Amino acid sequence: MIHTGRVKLDTGGRFAVVNITDQVREFVSKSGINEGVINIFYQHTTGGVIIGEHEAGIIADLQDMFEELIPSKKEYKHHVRDVDFNGHAHVRSALLTISVTVPILDSKLTLGTYQEVLVIDMQTERAPRYVVLQVQGV
Amino acid sequence: MIHTGRVKLDTGGRFAVVNITDQVREFVSKSGINEGVINIFYQHTTGGVIIGEHEAGIIADLQDMFEELIPSKKEYKHHVRDVDFNGHAHVRSALLTISVTVPILDSKLTLGTYQEVLVIDMQTERAPRYVVLQVQGV
Amino acid sequence: MIHTGRVKLDTGGRFAVVNITDQVREFVSKSGINEGVINIFYQHTTGGVIIGEHEAGIIADLQDMFEELIPSKKEYKHHVRDVDFNGHAHVRSALLTISVTVPILDSKLTLGTYQEVLVIDMQTERAPRYVVLQVQGV
Repeated sequence: MIHTGRVKLDTGGRFAVVNITDQVREFVSKSGINEGVINIFYQHTTGGVIIGEHEAGIIADLQDMFEELIPSKKEYKHHVRDVDFNGHAHVRSALLTISVTVPILDSKLTLGTYQEVLVIDMQTERAPRYVVLQVQGV
Repeated sequence: MIHTGRVKLDTGGRFAVVNITDQVREFVSKSGINEGVINIFYQHTTGGVIIGEHEAGIIADLQDMFEELIPSKKEYKHHVRDVDFNGHAHVRSALLTISVTVPILDSKLTLGTYQEVLVIDMQTERAPRYVVLQVQGV
Repeated sequence: MIHTGRVKLDTGGRFAVVNITDQVREFVSKSGINEGVINIFYQHTTGGVIIGEHEAGIIADLQDMFEELIPSKKEYKHHVRDVDFNGHAHVRSALLTISVTVPILDSKLTLGTYQEVLVIDMQTERAPRYVVLQVQGV
């Protein structure tokens, strides 16, 4: 059994971290899948989707780390075209994951106690963001 | 055909790198799968599972890199709650992968010559660690 | 339906970024799959496969970032064996992804507007590189 859907997010951008675990759980539940996987795929190049703990301190630490190692204010070669100025977001995105695959057992995501599905959007301005969800199994 | 299982590890924590390739191979072999994928999913937020070469020098280089860029001794905002002091592990985890999907062909993992499945556990104290394994295919 | 194949690349190594989106699309098209996933798996430990924008400035920014944070010229512990001198590539590889899973719907990859499938090969010398492609679905 395969079922594909898509979630639209209004994250606000800049360094937005959105917890989509509930939406993912609802999708799995509605699909009626018992055992298999869900693939969660982020459709943009200036962020990613990760599995992590959704705690304010950790999110701030993550942003601090990126700001220190891959600063948002810097002259990136991507900016030379004079089209957009989000070079930091593209480079950081390469270090995150664009898709995560989570096994499903007994109709539930096999997430650990502190694991949440988090979308990180580092686009410099607000824009609609899309995540594809697809379950495959029985 | 779908088969789901779980491996329990006693890594010791801190910066433990455990090669679970043999356990993954055994799981694939016992499942009887011929063609498909295995998804290897780490159930914690202070580490990850990667595919890499299991060579002592590389592991030490990886630890050195993390220690230099995302030090274990630092005042992370995650620590303000006074609950735990593993901020570095959460931040580093966001740069690793939580799950890896490896194709299976002719009943074998399609790993390259030097590729091994490695669990990285950076939890500050020893605790049981779990990895979900799931094959799907024919 | 499952179909597995492999692509051979001559990237040139060092810091080669190869856009394999057309090859992935062709594989999906030939497989006849309508809905499901494709798993794109890189069989080496000195690079990875990511989803990103294929723009010259971004590629240069990515290389600059790696050169600054994980320099190619440095005495890595991996070099002590006197076998090879690609420690930087192994460490960087741990921060990239070795496999990406992209959902397929209506016989098409669900890639966002700017998303391309990019192989990054940081091996120090030229060598054949292999990517496994596998579709699974209906």
